[in-house]
Amino acid sequence: MNPLDYAASSRQRFLDQLFEFLRYPSISTLPEHKTDVANAADWLASHLRSIGMQTVECVPTDGHPIVYAEWLGANGPTLLFYGHYDVQPVDPLDQWQTPPFEPTLRDGKIYARGATDDKGQVWLVISAIESWLRSVGHLPCNVKLLIEGEEEIGSTHLGTFIRAYQQRLACDAVLVCDTAMFAPDIPSLVYGLRGLAYVEVHVRGPRRDLHSGSYGGAVVNPANALAAMIAALHDEHGRVAVPGFYDAVLPLSEQERQLLAALPFDEEAYRQELDVPALGGEEGYSVLERIGARPTLDVNGMWSGFTGTGAKTVLPATAHAKISMRLVPEQQPDQIAQQVARFLEQCAPAGVRVQVQTLHGAEPVLVDRTSPPMMAAARALEQSFGRAPVYQREGGSIPVVTTFVREFGVPVVLMGFGLHTDGAHSPNEHFHLANFHRGTDAVIYFFEELARGASFSPC
Amino acid sequence: MNPLDYAASSRQRFLDQLFEFLRYPSISTLPEHKTDVANAADWLASHLRSIGMQTVECVPTDGHPIVYAEWLGANGPTLLFYGHYDVQPVDPLDQWQTPPFEPTLRDGKIYARGATDDKGQVWLVISAIESWLRSVGHLPCNVKLLIEGEEEIGSTHLGTFIRAYQQRLACDAVLVCDTAMFAPDIPSLVYGLRGLAYVEVHVRGPRRDLHSGSYGGAVVNPANALAAMIAALHDEHGRVAVPGFYDAVLPLSEQERQLLAALPFDEEAYRQELDVPALGGEEGYSVLERIGARPTLDVNGMWSGFTGTGAKTVLPATAHAKISMRLVPEQQPDQIAQQVARFLEQCAPAGVRVQVQTLHGAEPVLVDRTSPPMMAAARALEQSFGRAPVYQREGGSIPVVTTFVREFGVPVVLMGFGLHTDGAHSPNEHFHLANFHRGTDAVIYFFEELARGASFSPC
Repeated sequence: MNPLDYAASSRQRFLDQLFEFLRYPSISTLPEHKTDVANAADWLASHLRSIGMQTVECVPTDGHPIVYAEWLGANGPTLLFYGHYDVQPVDPLDQWQTPPFEPTLRDGKIYARGATDDKGQVWLVISAIESWLRSVGHLPCNVKLLIEGEEEIGSTHLGTFIRAYQQRLACDAVLVCDTAMFAPDIPSLVYGLRGLAYVEVHVRGPRRDLHSGSYGGAVVNPANALAAMIAALHDEHGRVAVPGFYDAVLPLSEQERQLLAALPFDEEAYRQELDVPALGGEEGYSVLERIGARPTLDVNGMWSGFTGTGAKTVLPATAHAKISMRLVPEQQPDQIAQQVARFLEQCAPAGVRVQVQTLHGAEPVLVDRTSPPMMAAARALEQSFGRAPVYQREGGSIPVVTTFVREFGVPVVLMGFGLHTDGAHSPNEHFHLANFHRGTDAVIYFFEELARGASFSPC
Repeated sequence: MNPLDYAASSRQRFLDQLFEFLRYPSISTLPEHKTDVANAADWLASHLRSIGMQTVECVPTDGHPIVYAEWLGANGPTLLFYGHYDVQPVDPLDQWQTPPFEPTLRDGKIYARGATDDKGQVWLVISAIESWLRSVGHLPCNVKLLIEGEEEIGSTHLGTFIRAYQQRLACDAVLVCDTAMFAPDIPSLVYGLRGLAYVEVHVRGPRRDLHSGSYGGAVVNPANALAAMIAALHDEHGRVAVPGFYDAVLPLSEQERQLLAALPFDEEAYRQELDVPALGGEEGYSVLERIGARPTLDVNGMWSGFTGTGAKTVLPATAHAKISMRLVPEQQPDQIAQQVARFLEQCAPAGVRVQVQTLHGAEPVLVDRTSPPMMAAARALEQSFGRAPVYQREGGSIPVVTTFVREFGVPVVLMGFGLHTDGAHSPNEHFHLANFHRGTDAVIYFFEELARGASFSPC
């Protein structure tokens, strides 16, 4: 039996096992789920042992454990797979049609927290490995698995682990299955991820909330001041007005613009799905360019004064905002955060005090579209989906990708099988069963194509 | 025994009863306190019966009840006293040193929500009435009390009540004790109040919160849009930029500017007390002019997106603000609210939908500084405080004053005993015990001076 036939005949069992995996409420950010996270790691580790991985470790960290496994029996290249078994919180719980940790198959979709992000995608890789090991008895390439439990909380202890395991993690390529396909039935390879800089701004005026009648007109209102400071962050062309913000941005090449323009993207359908009267963003760029290849600045949260029902006439003592910037190569998160902080401080009127606090950041990354592992992935996708993949830049961040690029200096393949409409981080998260199966087949092909190392020209 | 001696020997009891009054969390704007508001009204009504008021009614309305009482045994003028027993919300609760509804005497001050606004001031009037009735057995003038429970939410049902009770409310003068003294030890009469227009702005973008990575750059962020709209409301000279906003404003006369300039006001001490690096406001006017005689626009509340701890990368679906304008004669609240609403809608970028809702309003008012009741009040204050009062314009609004001026055509006396530093509407609201006592005496004198009706020249 070949691996594909093995996978085809094991579909129901793969799904049952994924359901078992999804039942663990491994919410990494909530302390009350610490044991659930640990149990998910243990269960995952014993499953990896059962399918024939040679080495399996459940490595404790100061946070949640990392599951690490190896199969090194091939006389071929070594692939490091990265994924995560932790999930996001589930609130608002009342918006779920079925409970988030009782996986349900409905209309060809697997509904559960973690279904698409990232347990379902981890599971198709593990199923592909089993399909090789249990059919022909070996894999065409060596495989190392690094499956962490802190991706949703900033991979706090992953850096320490990678430094400690540096020798053992040596590899020829990295595979990550945690991105989305461009559209249903269009297999996709992501070659760019945006970075992130995140600041929190605190504007303080009078020592206490004041009566807006007795004091209105005499002092600078921190909420009005913050609004003006935020307004100053953009110019009238939708560009970020912070001096130096674009200095390090790599311009889009004409070739890349053509590549993005060729993608089957319907702006009007996109606008309608979001239910906005018009799309927005930086002048002179298409929507896909704005999302994938241009940096942005967005308020993520803002609060001041009285926010209850009715009309309280308070002149608030303070006003606050969370503001984040999505970055593109070669912007540096620390530098951008500093530039934004300095600009906000300079914009503030004399009547208030401003404090800007930097939260976490992530570096942007671009990977080579023509590396042999990328070509192998493209061929694998074409065999599984029946059409060549598209290449896209993704607006979000996966901080660890930068670490792999920098620490190992090997090509990274971002081959995901989710869809943007899967509801990752939202109620009713789901994963299309068809993509679970096609993804399993694609990874089965990928192991072989990577080993073959044949040359391949991307479209 | 005369009324002053009676009051002097009843101080502790007056205070204990005020504490009892202050313990009712009569927050009119919060539906969950509806019963507390009603209980406060009942308790107040039964107290008024116990001190000898002839008629006491707790009048239900479609909102909170109005307490109405009469003592009409004098062969003299009739005074209508207006006050309110409802209070503002208490948040931020964690900034209170002692709980807002557990009144506490500390450093000569009564700490509680409502201590100065307006329960404490209502209480000194009631104590003055009791002092007359329980000492000499009668009052020198007739007294009608109208104490409402919706002052903090725009006196929604007071107009209906006043029309229904028009005959019974007939009077020769109105007394309101809900204003502040110019400074400690400087008794004050207020002759101008600002009006109010209050709007709530709702900015709606995409149909749901979005991932700021996947979508940032493609849509207009409602929080950024709202910030820009708010910023556009002022120009660089601290003036409101809404077209037509100043059209109806009566300019300050040279005489009035001199009167205000002569008040013993220390700008630097004021700045220090507020702990702001600099004062703010409209260019070309003094602080007292800005507060009393010029219109302003302030954000009272603002909220959008994620406001918890940490860095959530959400692109919020909506953003909201409460914005109010303090008005001066002859600005009209409805017209101003409409101008501001239209301006905000025009400022909004194409990618969002804007809805502006008008909440309550109040007309600005100026009263005659030389009416006989004003002169009687000036003499009463001089007897109680040992010095003549100053005349000032107050930045806040007491909507009902306009109604009294318009409906009854009688002089209105605004004689308050609070201080601007009392923290009305803020955490740790308090009322100086000394002002509570001196205010009681002043009102005892006022009843007599009003009856005497002697002429008096203001300073």
